[in-house]
Amino acid sequence: MAERTLHLNAFLMNVGHHEAAWRLPGSDPAAATSIAHYVNLARIAERGTFDSVFLADTPALRADVGQRPAVALEPTVLLTALAAATDRIGLIATASTTYDEPYNLARRFASLDHVSGGRAGWNIVTNAVVEAARNFNLDELPSHRARYRRAAEFVSVAQKLWDSWEDDAEVHDKSGVWADERKVHAIDHRGEHFSVRGPLNVPRPPQGHPLLVQAGSSEDGKALAGQFAEAVFTAQQTLDEGKAFYADLKERAQQHGRAPESIKILPGIVPVIGATEAEARKLEAELSDHIVHSYALHRLSTLLGVELTEADLDRRLDPAELPGEDRIEAAKSRYTLVADLALRENLTVREIIHRLGGGRGHRTFTGTPEQIADTIEHWFTSGAADGFNVMPPVLPSGLESFVDHVVPILRSRNLFRTTYAGRTLREHYGLPRPANQFADLAHAS
Amino acid sequence: MAERTLHLNAFLMNVGHHEAAWRLPGSDPAAATSIAHYVNLARIAERGTFDSVFLADTPALRADVGQRPAVALEPTVLLTALAAATDRIGLIATASTTYDEPYNLARRFASLDHVSGGRAGWNIVTNAVVEAARNFNLDELPSHRARYRRAAEFVSVAQKLWDSWEDDAEVHDKSGVWADERKVHAIDHRGEHFSVRGPLNVPRPPQGHPLLVQAGSSEDGKALAGQFAEAVFTAQQTLDEGKAFYADLKERAQQHGRAPESIKILPGIVPVIGATEAEARKLEAELSDHIVHSYALHRLSTLLGVELTEADLDRRLDPAELPGEDRIEAAKSRYTLVADLALRENLTVREIIHRLGGGRGHRTFTGTPEQIADTIEHWFTSGAADGFNVMPPVLPSGLESFVDHVVPILRSRNLFRTTYAGRTLREHYGLPRPANQFADLAHAS
Repeated sequence: MAERTLHLNAFLMNVGHHEAAWRLPGSDPAAATSIAHYVNLARIAERGTFDSVFLADTPALRADVGQRPAVALEPTVLLTALAAATDRIGLIATASTTYDEPYNLARRFASLDHVSGGRAGWNIVTNAVVEAARNFNLDELPSHRARYRRAAEFVSVAQKLWDSWEDDAEVHDKSGVWADERKVHAIDHRGEHFSVRGPLNVPRPPQGHPLLVQAGSSEDGKALAGQFAEAVFTAQQTLDEGKAFYADLKERAQQHGRAPESIKILPGIVPVIGATEAEARKLEAELSDHIVHSYALHRLSTLLGVELTEADLDRRLDPAELPGEDRIEAAKSRYTLVADLALRENLTVREIIHRLGGGRGHRTFTGTPEQIADTIEHWFTSGAADGFNVMPPVLPSGLESFVDHVVPILRSRNLFRTTYAGRTLREHYGLPRPANQFADLAHAS
Repeated sequence: MAERTLHLNAFLMNVGHHEAAWRLPGSDPAAATSIAHYVNLARIAERGTFDSVFLADTPALRADVGQRPAVALEPTVLLTALAAATDRIGLIATASTTYDEPYNLARRFASLDHVSGGRAGWNIVTNAVVEAARNFNLDELPSHRARYRRAAEFVSVAQKLWDSWEDDAEVHDKSGVWADERKVHAIDHRGEHFSVRGPLNVPRPPQGHPLLVQAGSSEDGKALAGQFAEAVFTAQQTLDEGKAFYADLKERAQQHGRAPESIKILPGIVPVIGATEAEARKLEAELSDHIVHSYALHRLSTLLGVELTEADLDRRLDPAELPGEDRIEAAKSRYTLVADLALRENLTVREIIHRLGGGRGHRTFTGTPEQIADTIEHWFTSGAADGFNVMPPVLPSGLESFVDHVVPILRSRNLFRTTYAGRTLREHYGLPRPANQFADLAHAS
């Protein structure tokens, strides 16, 4: 196997990433709350020796359950259920720093890491929708900058809490000493947003810290990633953009004194797979045909800050009508990505909708397993990716196709593992177990 | 089987409820974070057709990990893992209304209820220790009254969120209607502590609402229980006190327009079981011998608000030195219970410590399986209990003894089920699935 190898994450979402997936004849419309469905997906991904599975999350119901199954079980609960059904695959849950407390969240991820034997990861998000704010005593969304300031402090508090127990604090001496209290530390954090005394009431997680993941590509998001993230999920449409993003994030990590290989960049890819190109195109067309335009227009209007109706379907966007990223408080980087895509490729509104239906701004790639493996290898060897965040348009079928037809090609090219070498999520990603920030203090005393 | 039958809950705590349990030769000192240990306990309880297992919780590390394994995985995570390993038994997690948000907690319990097929219960606590406050941006513990005011609003918000989806809101019509939006309700809650728009992003739990449990016996605690609780875990030392508490709670429920049988009262019992009385006494003495006095004195001093040292071990408490419940801000009802016990039975400090070592104020009953079954039956038929919160002093052995030796006697007396008749936790307790508070509105419109 080559020195540097791919990392693959399976982004599990309901019956698939294409917004019309649930309407296909073979899809289970009750999948969103079905443990059996998610267990099946996790086992398929584990059969494909993926590094991890991943769940996105927003603590709010978006106003579109009429049109799609937008419900979701709480990710740390769902992943705990998947931990019991799998052995090796990593388990990455999204959780918000805007609407939770560091003690509660650090403890939940520490618990998931213990329960899973070191397979927990945390995708750190600040949440960009006002619907979430309104579930947490706020009328308006806090500003992008305010959310990210809170996020940075939140993560550093969580890291202190995970370190509040040294690795060898548990003594288990039955003469009467269960733990060495000198190795269990109050953290005494007092910051702008949080005062947290500690220590955590859970011993240090098997991985030291759960793997830290970040997925926002705004300026603030990239700054947070450079400081903390060990894996980054990102939406990149072109190889050049992908390379620029990759180089930028590696550089940001280095500015924080981190090695470039300590941060793994995984662009999203929506693979629409067919045995032949024609078959892949047919699946793509079938999915587009199932999109409900009224619904897609509403989403696109919200994303771009432009009011679009059925009458606009066959026209192209004028740069002058787009408000610019500075005036967007929600998903800034997603706005820019979609606006750039529309203008660059001179797409009609209908074409934008069909393109976004699959991946909401992530790159849809339609083709044969060989073609998909080629593009993955090309991005990987060109310095645009350390791996991919695989977003099947339809689940479970799209994940099965990828595991059964694309993974074998990647393995045959020595780009991807054939069996798991490690036991923990960090080991899969080739990332070290973090040192304990309090251990030196104790040694000195 | 008799019309009215017992309910049994297994209170799982680490290696047992006796503070010295972990020091016994057979105990696993690493049990607190071991999933295998808890899976074993849950399966033993399920073999004994218990209604439920239960986990206590405080979001803080008490300052005594030197002396005992006071760590704990987060209960909703741990119970999700147990859901995967069991089929029928109910799963009751403690969670705090003081240090969490209703949207997050309602969602987590709804998720656990979905994952477990309707087996989730929530023990509502406000947390009485300053160590928790200091992990959540506070220097001091909020007052007892303030915590309970917040708790009442918190629970009512959670109930609204569980009801925000009507039972038949999901339509699954692949022509393009996943849910009937008229049956998914914003809750628009604006109260003293919380503003929550809703709806929840999880469909209504299988049980409608998770079972609501309450365990504080202060005046405020009983008021909350009378309004909301469907099961009450309580510490009662004497039959007369048990009967008075039982009658009081049934009366309080009726004042809220609830049927007396809609609230089940389960006193705690710490059964120290031996094949003969002498054998049971020997186990009790072995446990007392393993208590570390310095540690127990510290805990008793905190509980009673009196500074006690080794020099006090063989003296009795003077009523004049006890501060009175009004001056206690933490665990008020526990204070009164222990003070009354000490004065009523004229116990030395050493005797109080030995008595509390087993159950921290819960009733320890040492004897043969027949004697334990007798006392359970006596309390049950005398109007002091609908069942018991079984708190084995040592785990797993104490739970195994109860299931293998006490449960068969209760079954032979037609006091307890031999198999599960229902599938959900509510069915086990004979409690109805709650009506949806928003359904009538929808029908009217």
